[in-house]
Amino acid sequence: MSIKIGICGYGNIGKGVEAAIKDNPDMELVGVFSRRDPKSIVTKTGAPAFSIDMLENGEADVDVVMLCSGSATDLPKQTPAIAAKYCVVDSFDTHAAIPEHFAAVDEAAKKAGTCALISGGWDPGLFSMLRVLGLCALPNGRTETFWGRGVSQGHSDAIRRIEGVLDARQYTVPVPEAVEAVRNGTAGDLTPRMKHRRECYVVAAENADRKRIEQAIVTMPHYFDEYDTTVTFISQEEMKRDHSEMPHAGLVLRHAETGLSGGHQGLIDFELKMDSNPEFTGSVLLSFARATVKMHQHGASGCFTPLDVPLAYLSPLSREELIKKYL
Amino acid sequence: MSIKIGICGYGNIGKGVEAAIKDNPDMELVGVFSRRDPKSIVTKTGAPAFSIDMLENGEADVDVVMLCSGSATDLPKQTPAIAAKYCVVDSFDTHAAIPEHFAAVDEAAKKAGTCALISGGWDPGLFSMLRVLGLCALPNGRTETFWGRGVSQGHSDAIRRIEGVLDARQYTVPVPEAVEAVRNGTAGDLTPRMKHRRECYVVAAENADRKRIEQAIVTMPHYFDEYDTTVTFISQEEMKRDHSEMPHAGLVLRHAETGLSGGHQGLIDFELKMDSNPEFTGSVLLSFARATVKMHQHGASGCFTPLDVPLAYLSPLSREELIKKYL
Repeated sequence: MSIKIGICGYGNIGKGVEAAIKDNPDMELVGVFSRRDPKSIVTKTGAPAFSIDMLENGEADVDVVMLCSGSATDLPKQTPAIAAKYCVVDSFDTHAAIPEHFAAVDEAAKKAGTCALISGGWDPGLFSMLRVLGLCALPNGRTETFWGRGVSQGHSDAIRRIEGVLDARQYTVPVPEAVEAVRNGTAGDLTPRMKHRRECYVVAAENADRKRIEQAIVTMPHYFDEYDTTVTFISQEEMKRDHSEMPHAGLVLRHAETGLSGGHQGLIDFELKMDSNPEFTGSVLLSFARATVKMHQHGASGCFTPLDVPLAYLSPLSREELIKKYL
Repeated sequence: MSIKIGICGYGNIGKGVEAAIKDNPDMELVGVFSRRDPKSIVTKTGAPAFSIDMLENGEADVDVVMLCSGSATDLPKQTPAIAAKYCVVDSFDTHAAIPEHFAAVDEAAKKAGTCALISGGWDPGLFSMLRVLGLCALPNGRTETFWGRGVSQGHSDAIRRIEGVLDARQYTVPVPEAVEAVRNGTAGDLTPRMKHRRECYVVAAENADRKRIEQAIVTMPHYFDEYDTTVTFISQEEMKRDHSEMPHAGLVLRHAETGLSGGHQGLIDFELKMDSNPEFTGSVLLSFARATVKMHQHGASGCFTPLDVPLAYLSPLSREELIKKYL
C-alpha cells in the first residue's frame, strides 16, 4: 500500500523530489507530468513522463501531486487547479502572497474534498515551524532568521538581466557578528546590511564595461542597494567549475529571557545546511506529502500549511513505534 | 477568556511554570496545589495554595493542570488520577516507561473525556519533535542527541548518596569532537564515553576519605563507569557561590545524504541553551497547555504527546495571523 506520487514540473525541485523517492520505501513514483511534450523528457530514474492534462482532467492514478513549478506565475494557477482533482503539495515561497494563495487553494480543495499543503519546503516550511515553536515555547524573546551561505536564485537572475552579463551566481551570506549578537541577546536593531552580505560571481561579455556592470549590481534597488555587495568577474570555465552546485543554509534563532524578573537567558538555535537545495527541499516536501495523505485519510479537506501538521504525520512509523523509539 | 492554570507540585518545575505565566497574557494562574499543608506554602507570585485533594475531587476551577511532580514515583499515579477530572500536562521523562505511562493516562483521559499531554518538556518534548522531524525530512541519515553542558539532577543525587558526601553537582558535557564528527558525517560508532564527559563537584565531610569517594563515583555502574569523569572537591561556600544555578543545554543533530547517488550532505542542527532548566521547561510546558486546551475544545480526548500537536496549536494567535506573520 505505497503512496503513489506524481511530480508536476520537472525542473530543479522536481528532480530533487524524484531523487528523494528512493529514501521513502512507502512511496512510489508514478511519473512526471509536464507542459512540455512528454516524449522530450528523459527522467533521471527512468520514470515515465506524461502530459499535465492528465492531472488537470483527473486521469492520473496518483495519491498526491508534488507541484514543483515556480511561485511567481505557475503555482498560483496550478495549485488550485490540480487541488480540484488530487491531494497536492507545493513549495510556494512568495511570502507576501501566501494569504491569497492559501485562500484560493483552500476554496478549490474544500470543494473537491482534497487536502492541499502549501509552502512545504524549508523556508517557508521547516523555518516557519521553528519560528512558531520559538515564539510559543519562549514568549519573552526575539526571533531572527538568517539565510546562507547559499545561492539565491532570484538575486542570480536579477544580475543576469543586466546588459553585458552572460552568467551570474549570487551567494547570500549571514554576517557572523550579527548571528552571535542575536545568540547572546546583545543585538540592537538590525538593518539588512547588518544581517547579510551578498557575494556576486559574474561572467561578462568580452567587450562589456565591467565598471558599469558592477555599479548596476551594487545600486540595484531592494536586491543589492541595502547590502554590502562584492562583485567578482570570473570566466565561464570558472563558473562551471566552482559554482555549478546549489548549496544553501540558514538559521532561525530565538533568544529569550525566563524567570519572574527575567535575567535568565534561553536560546533555541535551529540551523540547516545543504549541499543541494533542490534535493533537500524535495526530501522535505515528500514528508509533507505523507502527512497530506494521512490528513486526507482522516477525512480532512482544504488547504493546510506546515503549521497544521502534527510531527507524527510526517512519519511512516506507527504512533506506538514513534513513542517508543523517538519520544 | 484566559486559560485558567493550576500547578500541581511546587518544586523547581512548578516554580518555573509559575514564573512563565506572566509571559503568556492569555493565561492566569489559579493557584498551586500540593500534598503539603497549603498554609506552609508561600508562592513567589503570591498565588494562593490549595490542597491537592481539590484536584482529585474535581473541586478546583481550572482549565488545565500542570503536573510538576517527579517522574519516578509521583507522575505515574498523579497524571492518570488528575486526568480523570481535568485536562493535564506533565513532563514525564523516564524514557523507558513512557509507553506504560501513555497507556494508563490514555485510559483515564478517554474515560473522562479530558485531554492529557505527557512528556511536554524539552527532552522528551522539543527534542522528540526534532528527532522525528529530522528522521522524516531527511530519511537517509543518522540522528544523534547530545546533552549539556548542564546539571543532571539524577547524577547529582547519585553522588549525594555516597557516604561522606555532603553535597554534589554533576555536569554532563558533550565531547566537542563527537559533535563535530556527527555534523560532518564522519562519526563512526559512538560509545557513551565518546559522546559525553561527566564533571563532578563534591563537598565532602571533614574526615571523609576523598580517594574512596572519588573511586565510588568513577566506578559507579551505568551512572559513571562508562564515561570519562572528573571529580573536584570544593567547599560548601564554593558550591553555593559557583553551582547554585541550574543551567542546561543540548543538541539534536540529523546528518543525511541526499540525491540519487547520495554524496550531497544535509544537516539539521537543533540546539538549546538555558540558564535555568526549570524556567525554560516551565515555559515550554505552558505552550503545550495551550495546545491541550485547544485539542479539548475541538472535541478530542485521551493521551497526547508533543508528536501529536500541530505547531499552530501552541500559539495564542489565529491561524490567519500565523500564516501572515510567521509562515
